[in-house]
Amino acid sequence: MSTINHQVRLAARPVGEPQPTDWQHVEEPVGQPGDGEFLVQVLALSIDPAMRGWMNAGRSYIRPVEIGEVMRAGAVGRVIASQHPGFAVGDHVSGSFGVQEYCVSNGLGVTKVDPTAAPLPTYLGTLGMSGLTGYFGLIDIGRPEPGQTVVVSGAAGAVGSVVGQIAKIMGCRVIGIAGGEAKCRMIVDELGFDAAIDYRSEDVRKALRRHAPDGVDVYFDNVGGDILDAVLLTLARGARIIVCGAISQYNSTKPQGPANYLSLLVNRATMTGMVVFDYADRYAEGITQMATWRAEGRLKSLEDVVSGGVADFPDTLMRLFRGENHGKLVLKIAD
Amino acid sequence: MSTINHQVRLAARPVGEPQPTDWQHVEEPVGQPGDGEFLVQVLALSIDPAMRGWMNAGRSYIRPVEIGEVMRAGAVGRVIASQHPGFAVGDHVSGSFGVQEYCVSNGLGVTKVDPTAAPLPTYLGTLGMSGLTGYFGLIDIGRPEPGQTVVVSGAAGAVGSVVGQIAKIMGCRVIGIAGGEAKCRMIVDELGFDAAIDYRSEDVRKALRRHAPDGVDVYFDNVGGDILDAVLLTLARGARIIVCGAISQYNSTKPQGPANYLSLLVNRATMTGMVVFDYADRYAEGITQMATWRAEGRLKSLEDVVSGGVADFPDTLMRLFRGENHGKLVLKIAD
Repeated sequence: MSTINHQVRLAARPVGEPQPTDWQHVEEPVGQPGDGEFLVQVLALSIDPAMRGWMNAGRSYIRPVEIGEVMRAGAVGRVIASQHPGFAVGDHVSGSFGVQEYCVSNGLGVTKVDPTAAPLPTYLGTLGMSGLTGYFGLIDIGRPEPGQTVVVSGAAGAVGSVVGQIAKIMGCRVIGIAGGEAKCRMIVDELGFDAAIDYRSEDVRKALRRHAPDGVDVYFDNVGGDILDAVLLTLARGARIIVCGAISQYNSTKPQGPANYLSLLVNRATMTGMVVFDYADRYAEGITQMATWRAEGRLKSLEDVVSGGVADFPDTLMRLFRGENHGKLVLKIAD
Repeated sequence: MSTINHQVRLAARPVGEPQPTDWQHVEEPVGQPGDGEFLVQVLALSIDPAMRGWMNAGRSYIRPVEIGEVMRAGAVGRVIASQHPGFAVGDHVSGSFGVQEYCVSNGLGVTKVDPTAAPLPTYLGTLGMSGLTGYFGLIDIGRPEPGQTVVVSGAAGAVGSVVGQIAKIMGCRVIGIAGGEAKCRMIVDELGFDAAIDYRSEDVRKALRRHAPDGVDVYFDNVGGDILDAVLLTLARGARIIVCGAISQYNSTKPQGPANYLSLLVNRATMTGMVVFDYADRYAEGITQMATWRAEGRLKSLEDVVSGGVADFPDTLMRLFRGENHGKLVLKIAD
């Protein structure tokens, strides 16, 4: 193994879109695990829209990454040295290891994963935080019933692709909103959505009226902005909106609120924010269920794996905001 | 009695603030009740922010008032002729009689009221739709618990004044947001709110941080706009926002969405729209409870009674949007 640990640290808090100067590329000696610790070689990094929020100062659902700190990132890796009774050399693990090649861990928040049961990137996507976010957000907050209409934005993304497929399993009619013809074709042809709306070439509101003439019962929102406003105008009575994210707004210095929010009143609808961490005591339930559906061929796992080094993290992150990823975006940094 | 029925009809759909030219003043012969009908002399009209919405075209929670139609209005009156077995001459009644001096009714949606138990305007306010809106919105959607912090905007208005008092009865800490020193003094000194914030002279967000250092558990929103945005930034975890109205936006041609809505995510909070009509089968419960509290002196009824003719309706309505009313605004048109 290398004795050098390449890292990407936060150098400055971005204003608007993150710039190269907001990152600091650092080399450190690889840490040595002390008693009760183990050393992980990071193999693949989870690239998430939420990362943009973690770079901001101020109170949020998780503490901000501090200036000078290694950028927070979910990751999968392999234990290469251990003084921890619960983790042995050769174990594959998933945890918040950060944008770096090696991480010393005490095991808190780390789970073992089985690379023979699913490819490692899947443990960052469908069988990881993205999948759990879709699962609990849709089922617990959306509470869809068979025959109801479920709309999801960012439908070709890590969370959206899971949400739509689970909604289909639950017997709903599912409409995905995504950017570009390729993504729209994919969610219908490969993932089994009933319809797709390409927000880049279609009037979302008109398309929703066509695809959901009786209104939208559940809207799982990953994007905010104009798309949220369009869906608000097509709600069914008693609709549930899950506010999971707002990727269209994360780089905005002047966020756009949903001007049509009074549709909540007209339709006696609810808009609820969700953070997956609140379901930590039910992760096992979610993972077990999704692994079962996956094994049955009912839940496909979309991963968009980019190979590179940790130095490619800043560019890879920007792919999310340009909508270039299909499914879970993963930066693979070692075999 | 007069043989002439003065009416105010909708002449045009307003763009922004209603103008005098949006109304038509009409004289008609007083109608005669047919079989199963009765004639009501309207004594007092309920003047409500929601009226502005009823003037707009488009789908809402109630059909729009049509051009040329008598303006919809809740009212109390006295039966002066009857061919209906359930209503006798001399009965006092409450119903949607419209902005006119006389109304022929078949009794649908009409309830008898007892002018010896409470003044007639109270049946339009605390013991009417305004009170029921506050009661069900706060209790069913807000679900406040003793010791929690409840914030209400439009706190000196018909609904807000009821919401704050019920929240106090439920053992909550109550902060009212209102415009001007007189209203703020009134809700604290006369209605027993714990604190008041004058949005005209104070920074609402800073004042909320001072008065609600642990965050806002329940926000009953009657106003929308900047005040909603300020409250969003001070939510406690798991907060419930009741979207009852948005008087700040009703005359706006470009409505303002809550830019800080992602605070719902950070705080796992919910924003839910409510329409009182959904609780029709529980009105009796609400009225009985509020009448009891009123009799016990725990729920004060604030009414702002303006005397005039139906021709004064357009001007009286505008008092709401200028924030000139203290409590339920009522236009008394006959003794």
